[in-house]
Amino acid sequence: MQTPELARAESLIRTIPDYPEPGVLFRDITPLLADAEALRATIDAMIEPFAGQFDVVAGIEARGFLLAGAVAMAAGVGLVPIRKAGRLPRPAASVSYALEYGTATIEAHDDIADGTRVLLVDDVLATGGTIQAAHALVPALGGVVVATSVLMELVALGGRAIVPDVHALFAA
Amino acid sequence: MQTPELARAESLIRTIPDYPEPGVLFRDITPLLADAEALRATIDAMIEPFAGQFDVVAGIEARGFLLAGAVAMAAGVGLVPIRKAGRLPRPAASVSYALEYGTATIEAHDDIADGTRVLLVDDVLATGGTIQAAHALVPALGGVVVATSVLMELVALGGRAIVPDVHALFAA
Repeated sequence: MQTPELARAESLIRTIPDYPEPGVLFRDITPLLADAEALRATIDAMIEPFAGQFDVVAGIEARGFLLAGAVAMAAGVGLVPIRKAGRLPRPAASVSYALEYGTATIEAHDDIADGTRVLLVDDVLATGGTIQAAHALVPALGGVVVATSVLMELVALGGRAIVPDVHALFAA
Repeated sequence: MQTPELARAESLIRTIPDYPEPGVLFRDITPLLADAEALRATIDAMIEPFAGQFDVVAGIEARGFLLAGAVAMAAGVGLVPIRKAGRLPRPAASVSYALEYGTATIEAHDDIADGTRVLLVDDVLATGGTIQAAHALVPALGGVVVATSVLMELVALGGRAIVPDVHALFAA
């Protein structure tokens, strides 16, 4: 059941045709983020199923940082940035994964105690590659992924086949 | 006057010598971010002087996104990402600025009403170039920069000469 607040938040997501390439519908969440009430309703709903179950939130660069910062304050937990390769001075763990062309790598510092319960957050579930890599990265830091919560799932990209348990607030 | 909570938060900032190049002391805020109490004290202190004076927070990519997300929830306001060039489908404004070698560009969508009061947030005041550019970007969106708040000022880099009114919680 979607509340009126969440329906309004979803209505603020802007669809931009032919970006980043012809035939692709880009879902732009910036109008939602800019609206205080929509942002609050979205963050609350992204974490509500996991209340009390996580000690830190890990956000995936870059749009995931916006949401993870918000989740950290809403839930009263610490915040771990998961960064693209080469942006951290002392990465404790790195995980590489395949893209359509080539590979990408994500990294994180080890600022958490062993056994720390981690909620993974990102803006979008697309192909699932980055989120799958993050699931491998967190245990390498000593953490345990409790759940993954995204603002939106892009169903046609099939990421759910790779990371089936992701909580997606909206779908398109 | 620094509270015990803020003194503890500051103590969590890690100094990494010779990064990203020999002779540079890198200030790593990730241990502070990962600590729930330190993060809360830091965010509260970054916005306290400006309580009630801003309608949205604008965060500068990428580390500024972590703090801006947190500020948005703590202050109950919306959130505007200021991105590096080429990452937004429909930037409403772009500002380029000089780096030591070459130039950089920041961009934003226009998701705010004219006259919106904006708090600019970033992690560090270094040379001041990015923050100065953000001060030019916000009016191009119709916003008014009320203040700029950073977690830390790197005094030796002289950014305060360029953006004198930045509120810096910590200095090194």
